[in-house]
Amino acid sequence: MLLPQIHQPSDLKDLTTEQLADLAGEIRQFLIEKLSATGGHLASNLGVVELTLALHYLYDSPKDKMIFDVGHQAYVHKVLTGRMDRFDTLRKYKGLCGFVKRNESEHDVWEAGHSSTSLSAAMGMALARDFKKEDNKVIAIIGDGALTGGMAFEALNHIGHEQRKLTVILNDNEMSIAPNVGAMHKYLGKIRSDKNYLRAKDEMESLIKKIPAIGDKIAKTAEKLKDTLKYAMVSGVLFEELGFTYLGPVDGHDIPKLLETLQQADNVEGPVLIHVVTIKGKGYLPAEADSYKWHGITPYKIESGQVLKAAGGHPMYTEVFGQTLIELAEQDERIVAVTPAMPGGSGLFPFAARFPDRMIDVGIAEQHAATMCAALAMEGMKPVYAVYSTFMQRAYDQIVHDICRHNANVMFAIDRAGFVGADGETHQGVYDIAFMRHIPNIVIMMPKDENELRHMMKTALDYNEGPIAYRYPRINGLGVPLDQVLTAIPIGQWETVREGEGYAILGSGPMVQLGLEVADELKRDGMNVSVVNARFMKPLDEQLLLDLAAKGTRMLVVEEASQAGSMGSAVLEFYASKGLHDVAVGIMGVPDEFIEHGSIKDQQREAGLTTENIATALKALAPGEAITFHKNSV
Amino acid sequence: MLLPQIHQPSDLKDLTTEQLADLAGEIRQFLIEKLSATGGHLASNLGVVELTLALHYLYDSPKDKMIFDVGHQAYVHKVLTGRMDRFDTLRKYKGLCGFVKRNESEHDVWEAGHSSTSLSAAMGMALARDFKKEDNKVIAIIGDGALTGGMAFEALNHIGHEQRKLTVILNDNEMSIAPNVGAMHKYLGKIRSDKNYLRAKDEMESLIKKIPAIGDKIAKTAEKLKDTLKYAMVSGVLFEELGFTYLGPVDGHDIPKLLETLQQADNVEGPVLIHVVTIKGKGYLPAEADSYKWHGITPYKIESGQVLKAAGGHPMYTEVFGQTLIELAEQDERIVAVTPAMPGGSGLFPFAARFPDRMIDVGIAEQHAATMCAALAMEGMKPVYAVYSTFMQRAYDQIVHDICRHNANVMFAIDRAGFVGADGETHQGVYDIAFMRHIPNIVIMMPKDENELRHMMKTALDYNEGPIAYRYPRINGLGVPLDQVLTAIPIGQWETVREGEGYAILGSGPMVQLGLEVADELKRDGMNVSVVNARFMKPLDEQLLLDLAAKGTRMLVVEEASQAGSMGSAVLEFYASKGLHDVAVGIMGVPDEFIEHGSIKDQQREAGLTTENIATALKALAPGEAITFHKNSV
Repeated sequence: MLLPQIHQPSDLKDLTTEQLADLAGEIRQFLIEKLSATGGHLASNLGVVELTLALHYLYDSPKDKMIFDVGHQAYVHKVLTGRMDRFDTLRKYKGLCGFVKRNESEHDVWEAGHSSTSLSAAMGMALARDFKKEDNKVIAIIGDGALTGGMAFEALNHIGHEQRKLTVILNDNEMSIAPNVGAMHKYLGKIRSDKNYLRAKDEMESLIKKIPAIGDKIAKTAEKLKDTLKYAMVSGVLFEELGFTYLGPVDGHDIPKLLETLQQADNVEGPVLIHVVTIKGKGYLPAEADSYKWHGITPYKIESGQVLKAAGGHPMYTEVFGQTLIELAEQDERIVAVTPAMPGGSGLFPFAARFPDRMIDVGIAEQHAATMCAALAMEGMKPVYAVYSTFMQRAYDQIVHDICRHNANVMFAIDRAGFVGADGETHQGVYDIAFMRHIPNIVIMMPKDENELRHMMKTALDYNEGPIAYRYPRINGLGVPLDQVLTAIPIGQWETVREGEGYAILGSGPMVQLGLEVADELKRDGMNVSVVNARFMKPLDEQLLLDLAAKGTRMLVVEEASQAGSMGSAVLEFYASKGLHDVAVGIMGVPDEFIEHGSIKDQQREAGLTTENIATALKALAPGEAITFHKNSV
Repeated sequence: MLLPQIHQPSDLKDLTTEQLADLAGEIRQFLIEKLSATGGHLASNLGVVELTLALHYLYDSPKDKMIFDVGHQAYVHKVLTGRMDRFDTLRKYKGLCGFVKRNESEHDVWEAGHSSTSLSAAMGMALARDFKKEDNKVIAIIGDGALTGGMAFEALNHIGHEQRKLTVILNDNEMSIAPNVGAMHKYLGKIRSDKNYLRAKDEMESLIKKIPAIGDKIAKTAEKLKDTLKYAMVSGVLFEELGFTYLGPVDGHDIPKLLETLQQADNVEGPVLIHVVTIKGKGYLPAEADSYKWHGITPYKIESGQVLKAAGGHPMYTEVFGQTLIELAEQDERIVAVTPAMPGGSGLFPFAARFPDRMIDVGIAEQHAATMCAALAMEGMKPVYAVYSTFMQRAYDQIVHDICRHNANVMFAIDRAGFVGADGETHQGVYDIAFMRHIPNIVIMMPKDENELRHMMKTALDYNEGPIAYRYPRINGLGVPLDQVLTAIPIGQWETVREGEGYAILGSGPMVQLGLEVADELKRDGMNVSVVNARFMKPLDEQLLLDLAAKGTRMLVVEEASQAGSMGSAVLEFYASKGLHDVAVGIMGVPDEFIEHGSIKDQQREAGLTTENIATALKALAPGEAITFHKNSV
């Protein structure tokens, strides 16, 4: 066993390439075992074992900067940088982060949960190095999927122009290296039928025909020329056009080849792109066979590859969304679903199976998806932009400039709104209300349960006056009965789910349930608290707010969303606009800090969104109780 | 004269190509004359006269969809679609919009002030057409600059994959069509020295050497092969790789050639990219000679090309920023300036002249710029991200995920904050406070005058605890003396510029001056209003707010920013967090609608930000005056 002796990258330096290969096997075994208990991003990490070993063998981290695009492919890096003993806590509260994390190690130089940032980071680090007249290496490792994100292209374009020394490793795991399989085959096929290539080939053949036969030698040379021509056109010309030296493709599981190519790259002036072909899930057959499923996985049995699911549980909001969209699309052929590379995560596989032509996966391209939806809507379609709250951040400008300014009938299905659990602080869906509420023309909703989600989807479909969004959490539904007949909810109409007196909790989504629990508890203390399902974040139910104020109700807005700028602010703004300056309104939301990984419950507790805190905050709203008792009670 | 008879595109159909060429001359003359009085985007429109004529001659608008990327290149389109008589009102309040505007004409099918959206729009319209089983054409016209925006690449990638029928016209106006000049020359040079090309060439030459001489014919064929090879590599292979059929380059001022190529494109299945080479400013020598200056121009004398500038005027904030940045950079070599294609507009030309190596123009790439700044800062540099408020919207996710989450020491110089005048609703800088205030770790400032801007720049430089932004308007400074010694302002410290009693106006930037005017007026009515320079939008001056509340002050927050979610909301949230539920706070900001083009004064009036309204709102804050008197008094 070599692995137990590896505590830092320098421990690799004296190993032979054979030993590195053995170590790769040990690391694979380690990951397969550890993740069988914790879950995590298995397939992508199994794919980069040799690559990560080669990088740490050759380079001098942290002086040399290794930048992992989307930090969940950094498990091997964590193993090699002294964090082996923490894998039992992977993605758990206060445990090892599932992404690159700077406060864990000096070897973690760049954090990323969103894709396509590594090239910009590499460019910044290369520029800084040159400004400081230092001489370290900068290496970005980016997957082929992340390369479709627009910002990666912006960076390629700039890097190619600036010609600073840096290495981009394109980790291409869509391709099988088995012959004639996968995207490479298709790509070669495309190139072979390319008209320029065909023309050149025709002319070459006509040239060769005119040459008197001089035996094998010339034929071989001609063949070689043809190959060269093909090579010139096939391999990396896109990157070469952008100013990179292209090396590859290289088998990403062949350590000597990897080392050779990396060294070759070091000798090139200016930026280099190394095209490395890896197999996702390499070395664990279940993961190799279905790398999509094994991308992010829950605990599993090693031998069978059987995934251990928590028993029972009500359907998740995501699933209810997917099923309901099929029902609606059966009746309305204007509906099309648009996803930026998350067909599975967004619950759209059943929809895609039922309506393959109406399912549009644009790749990692949130901006394009949003603007395309605007155009679809302007031409009479009813596009549903299915997107995670956190990734929708990428499309903020397109939402303002293309969707809301055009007042286009785009429906937003915002998944993973609120806390998201193990993915942690790069993925929290707590800003969408704050970054959308100030945009004119948009309607924003959140359902209290999965049945209401269905009605909201109908509400959105029937609404033809502009963009409308429904947001829902990454949790199981409450298990309520699902109405078969769906009816639109009047825009802006809230629902009083518990009629009390004197005090009211205003919340949406899971906070309604939490509010009801608090109200039940406070009943014992003699408080009779109203609970309002404030299901429209925009527009507000102004009449209900006026009624509450008229009765002198003291209100607490509770939201799993940024405390600044979300619905609580909207309520305060409304009363101010009416000149009602003495209405007691408190806000309890996500405080002004980034909340790290853990369970959703951990994160709610960290943010102070517990029944105890809510009860305390309500009591503090009593006249004369002007005290601050918790960082995030407002 | 043909022009007076053109009232709609169908009036072009019977013209000969010679007549079209004559008409092009007349349109040029028309634009040169009209814009000499109004100003506007002259150079780009002179470049697309023949192209726009060819499109309207050949296609059937609005059935066929013409999508102009960045709608300011649509003046010719406006001339041809019945809006000739409105050019005297170009870019004026209630006048002809400087961009494509759907409420002006059925021929305006897509509005855009931000670049790089046209390809996504085209894809959406092509998809919708196919869903509806219609057969119209979809044509996007995009400049070479806009093509560097990441979302354009996202769209190219998706269009190439989907293979729907649509035409992309790449309007390449960086190239001169004169031989051996400009970017094409450089591009060919690069290709000639390309290693793949060289290798193929070497092998071909060695092949040819082995061929017994058979006279001129073979030599010519070999030469032809070489050309073919070069052609394969040079022309559009990048686009071909992405799935497009590439046609061109075509001289964009040659109407017969344009028509021929457009028709050729119509016969191709799937997406086509036509590479059209145009000259910016074509037909007007001053504009041809300096197309950068003549991109957006103020009124000018036609004969001399002399630009008529408003006499005098204090230096603009933009200029003070540029000069001060030089001063600071003289003393601190960590400072680098980063701009997404706006070196001139951001006032950075003097900086670029003084520190060419520390000036980084990344092209239209707001996302890359932001993330690169994070990396620069994390490596010890002090990057200044100089960006217009409206374009910064493109980098929202990068600000959250890469800059603020990393707590990187990035300085934001946010120009054109507030209303921007003639560019209109696509360019208003009224959302940045609302979309940044809820992000942890960031500091946001706005100076009351150009001298304070200088001190804020020093404040930002001295601050080493995370990202910090200063925002400033697109107007002249007040002409105040500029301090030579710059000192940092304590973070979060506001300034009471007028000490009154009972009432206070809280504002930042130009609103401070407006507040002082109102206070002077109200003095006559016996009100003694305090005016506070609330120069930090985040963090707030909590002590000052507590003091004001303790004295029972009734406050009006006045801001040239979205009423929802900006500083007024922050003030309300703060009092709520302290349990102070009876403080009278009103907000007067930009109402929940998009404000169209006009002068900045027009836009302030449209938004209700006038001294009269502010005075009325203050009076309405008096106890017992709970009335709503204006759409945007809150």
